[in-house]
Amino acid sequence: MDRASLDSLLLLVRPDLEQVNRVILEHMESRVELIPQLAGHIIAAGGKRLRPMLTLASARLCGYGGPRHVHLAACVEFIHTATLLHDDVVDESDLRRGIATANTVWGNQASVLVGDFLFSRAFQLMVADGSLDVLGILSNASAVIAEGEVLQLLTTNDTETTEATYLEVIGAKTAALFAAACRVGAVVAERPEAEADALDRYGRALGIAFQLVDDALDYSARQATLGKSIGDDFKEGKITLPVVLAFNRGDDAERAFWRRCLEQTDQRDGDLDRALSLMTKHGALNDTIDRARKYGDEARTALEIFPNSPFKAAMGDVVDFCIQRAY
Amino acid sequence: MDRASLDSLLLLVRPDLEQVNRVILEHMESRVELIPQLAGHIIAAGGKRLRPMLTLASARLCGYGGPRHVHLAACVEFIHTATLLHDDVVDESDLRRGIATANTVWGNQASVLVGDFLFSRAFQLMVADGSLDVLGILSNASAVIAEGEVLQLLTTNDTETTEATYLEVIGAKTAALFAAACRVGAVVAERPEAEADALDRYGRALGIAFQLVDDALDYSARQATLGKSIGDDFKEGKITLPVVLAFNRGDDAERAFWRRCLEQTDQRDGDLDRALSLMTKHGALNDTIDRARKYGDEARTALEIFPNSPFKAAMGDVVDFCIQRAY
Repeated sequence: MDRASLDSLLLLVRPDLEQVNRVILEHMESRVELIPQLAGHIIAAGGKRLRPMLTLASARLCGYGGPRHVHLAACVEFIHTATLLHDDVVDESDLRRGIATANTVWGNQASVLVGDFLFSRAFQLMVADGSLDVLGILSNASAVIAEGEVLQLLTTNDTETTEATYLEVIGAKTAALFAAACRVGAVVAERPEAEADALDRYGRALGIAFQLVDDALDYSARQATLGKSIGDDFKEGKITLPVVLAFNRGDDAERAFWRRCLEQTDQRDGDLDRALSLMTKHGALNDTIDRARKYGDEARTALEIFPNSPFKAAMGDVVDFCIQRAY
Repeated sequence: MDRASLDSLLLLVRPDLEQVNRVILEHMESRVELIPQLAGHIIAAGGKRLRPMLTLASARLCGYGGPRHVHLAACVEFIHTATLLHDDVVDESDLRRGIATANTVWGNQASVLVGDFLFSRAFQLMVADGSLDVLGILSNASAVIAEGEVLQLLTTNDTETTEATYLEVIGAKTAALFAAACRVGAVVAERPEAEADALDRYGRALGIAFQLVDDALDYSARQATLGKSIGDDFKEGKITLPVVLAFNRGDDAERAFWRRCLEQTDQRDGDLDRALSLMTKHGALNDTIDRARKYGDEARTALEIFPNSPFKAAMGDVVDFCIQRAY
């Protein structure tokens, strides 16, 4: 049911998306074989290609009939993949404790450098495309993403993090690229600023909804069915909205629990279960998803200036997909 | 004496370079305070600003009288700084220019992310400048640098690395940015392709000479007076030309020694001393510097198409500076 709601878009953009995949494969080539190997591993490992699909859909929604959106969708995916690779970097403190194996270190090194390579490739592709507007949109987004990631690093282990700061983090680290991916569609179609702004708002609200659901899923049984482990954020002391809400609504004993687990990262058997039951007690997951739904509505509203079309309908379905992942 | 040979250039570009420093300070600002803190740490730690000086000098050599070269020189320094930050993660270095590296102070993750931020800022500055040619030059250079760093990673601990592969590594990881930094000068001055190519050749040859000397210095007593430790490359199993030459010229026992130290990274007290004496025995450091001198000559030759001028003379002095650092 939730997969179905992404399928309507997939059906519409499939030929374009196949071209995007070809452009990606072609441009991650290098005479240094490790680069396509490592990049291929993460790119093929197959995200949903949600971001490049948004670029394709936005361009088509704006009536674009040319070939440029394919290359720009590939740029968006390269930037996304680069940030994923850099996200995976293990902190130096872990290495110092002698925990990391030589393999982990090698993975760290390669992740950073291949991320840099893909990031550079994205800019080479944009230069070949030739639009300074697009280069501006995606270089701005890249700077904002990096800022968001640093801010997230600073909120890690900090249970005093506010909902406002959390929203700033996900607005930057996730929603900025969603917004840029969509705005680029209006720009290649040479549509008026009002449409570019509308697509930007759609992407931004969708990105926030997507991340809110992602952060709820990390504490949700639903996660297991997606083949992912649960409680990763908890283990890392990452402060997401479910934690912010449960912490703020908790009594002194509960706050002491959160501080021990997330600030001092002193975690014991049964702590994750207690965290989950505190979240249930305070409705933290439901309220996180409620907020996601609100942003989803905002995304849908942003599309109202466009006339009805299969693309508009499919982009509405993407909103459903992002929310329904939670269930 | 060696410092003096950089001073002639410094004297000529000082007003421009002060503006570059202002642009750098301004554009590393972020509402996320850790970013200017960490970036400031590495940027202020004060490299020689060699690469941005080359952009400034190249533009002036080409008769450029406008303000754009200042911003593009800042881009070059941002890209360089981003690669340093990512390099320090990769190399697990503790010291750079005699002070603690950013990753030891703030952690690997912050170094990676601030590197990403500076890299994005470089592209934002280029977009504001508005030249697709410049964007092309520096995005190409960035991709090549990343390839070179990955290739270096693959040659680490590999004593079979050839001189050709070593030259490919330093041509990519170091010389590509030197070449791009110089080429950009001709492009802003809107000079013919022949001059852009000449400056590219100058920068490339200079970059290789610079790196050859750097790699010789890592095994040289001269290093200590620069506030750097000696033998870092040896400890990391990095295969540089002094090692390639000593290994190729060594007998079986010597090769076994190099393999134990650099491939198995099984290093004991006295090993670095033995490595140094083997390099002396085989003239590995002298020959490395001889090759640097040859590339230095190539750099100087590339400048011949330009009429004599104080800038041309100063850029010749930079070649001397890069070579004389060895002594």
